[in-house]
Amino acid sequence: MTPRPTLEQVAAHAGVGRGTVSRVVNGSPQVSEQTRRAVEAAIAELGYVPNLAARALVTRRTGTVALVVAEGEERLFEEPFFARAVRGISSAVQASGRQLVLALSEGRPLERYLTPQHVDGVLLLSVRADDPLPRQLQGTGLPVVLGGRPDGVDVPHVDVDNAGGARAAVAHLLATGRRRIATVTGPPDMGAGRDRLAGYRDALAGAEALEVTGDFTEGSGYRGVRELLDRRPDLDAVFAAGDSMAVGALRALREAGRSVPGDVAVVGFDDSPLAAVTDPPLTTVRQPVEELGRAMAELLAALLAGEEPASRVLPTELVVRASS
Amino acid sequence: MTPRPTLEQVAAHAGVGRGTVSRVVNGSPQVSEQTRRAVEAAIAELGYVPNLAARALVTRRTGTVALVVAEGEERLFEEPFFARAVRGISSAVQASGRQLVLALSEGRPLERYLTPQHVDGVLLLSVRADDPLPRQLQGTGLPVVLGGRPDGVDVPHVDVDNAGGARAAVAHLLATGRRRIATVTGPPDMGAGRDRLAGYRDALAGAEALEVTGDFTEGSGYRGVRELLDRRPDLDAVFAAGDSMAVGALRALREAGRSVPGDVAVVGFDDSPLAAVTDPPLTTVRQPVEELGRAMAELLAALLAGEEPASRVLPTELVVRASS
Repeated sequence: MTPRPTLEQVAAHAGVGRGTVSRVVNGSPQVSEQTRRAVEAAIAELGYVPNLAARALVTRRTGTVALVVAEGEERLFEEPFFARAVRGISSAVQASGRQLVLALSEGRPLERYLTPQHVDGVLLLSVRADDPLPRQLQGTGLPVVLGGRPDGVDVPHVDVDNAGGARAAVAHLLATGRRRIATVTGPPDMGAGRDRLAGYRDALAGAEALEVTGDFTEGSGYRGVRELLDRRPDLDAVFAAGDSMAVGALRALREAGRSVPGDVAVVGFDDSPLAAVTDPPLTTVRQPVEELGRAMAELLAALLAGEEPASRVLPTELVVRASS
Repeated sequence: MTPRPTLEQVAAHAGVGRGTVSRVVNGSPQVSEQTRRAVEAAIAELGYVPNLAARALVTRRTGTVALVVAEGEERLFEEPFFARAVRGISSAVQASGRQLVLALSEGRPLERYLTPQHVDGVLLLSVRADDPLPRQLQGTGLPVVLGGRPDGVDVPHVDVDNAGGARAAVAHLLATGRRRIATVTGPPDMGAGRDRLAGYRDALAGAEALEVTGDFTEGSGYRGVRELLDRRPDLDAVFAAGDSMAVGALRALREAGRSVPGDVAVVGFDDSPLAAVTDPPLTTVRQPVEELGRAMAELLAALLAGEEPASRVLPTELVVRASS
């Protein structure tokens, strides 16, 4: 089988530069009729198949980048993570001279909209393991950058060190004398949920694990801690894998008559604006959410510039306050 | 000069229906080659110029509706009004089978994006009097629906009865014995700001007006009441033209050692989720924000269906709580 001809070979065959071939492939008006015909002849003769991804890379014709959040509008506005991420993304997208549009994908088919006709690239946030969207987008040839860790699909991404942060949280609880350390986990179908759980288990180093599954909402933290207290009334620490869940955990502990941190220490994850105003203020793992957003937008801008940027993992850091 | 031929005349000339002409004009694939050629011949012969607005009305080719909020992301996430409006808009847009995308226009040129190529119609929120966007959009032929009252431009819109709500607030304060009633206004370049101020002045009925200009943010309510207290230390009521400003007003009054409602009554506007959790809970004017959003999306859907729906003004209602 003959190897597929490259864009370079087409350019050489037509006696023009690479950029000219790209412009013809992308229907740019900045090409003379004569040049266009020469390039089209070379394409036909060599059997060149334009690469959709390269095509989107070259044209940048919409000037628009989509941020797709795989949530409904309730979550978008209620979970401070998203406001912070949008802030970082928005500033970097603006700096690149592009326009940001936001779409929520919960239960909504976006395939008519997420095409090279409407957007130059896509940023994805809060994607679940079984979400077909990342794979569908790859089929469109659009450059895609994922916030978080991709699952069974190879996508450029920016993640934070979830496992390392969770290990630091549990190590801190052990170092301050806690021995019955429970966790309310994030969703098992999200990398952030799984990785924080893995870090928790890792750091326990043989101590008893006491786990209940949450979904990052305040309500799931509240219900989770009630269930944990039923199972182990003598637990002396809770690692909630998100600050909103930690707020729910504090509420459940208060209702159960447990003092924080006297009876039970609580550590969250995020360092959201909530963490500083809870009672008591929350020890938590800081993840750099604005920076995550900025880095996602910068990775996409690099892809759009034809570069091959490396995915990144940003560091997390324990912030000790009064709840532990 | 010959009058411009109508779509009907083209249809008659080509021996086809109006819908067929529309489909040809809009490049629909559901037309046979023969019919297309007949219609194109009729168009050329009569010198027909397709109307852009009609074209956007007929095609619905993107299935996408844009909500443009004339604010930055800070305001979008911090002011509960927007979460509620997006909820109403989103549910109605989904019900119409379309996809909603959100764009923020603060300081960003959107003209490359807001075209019939990318969206079927535009919903506008939080637009200032001097914002060129509504007029620009009319030039694109895209159907536009404004949330609020248009200013110097004729755009289908959904507003709430801002003046009536403000009158009810001030009448309530007068009826409960307040006599030195100050107001922190909304932005003078927004209909909601001007109309609530007009309602306040109207209801004072000759009593002394005591006004300071705010911008709907908590900080402007705080600074406004500090200034008002400097000017009139004996004021006995504050009508803040938005709940976030009322929260700032409560903070300024607390710092100044004034009890609420003992020394000073406070009334807000919105009935946002904040109003029920302030200390004391806030008397406020309820505006039906989800319904406003839903009505905007429904108005746009009617425009897209080729109807000529009437603009609407939704009622507001005083909700009395402990702050007055």
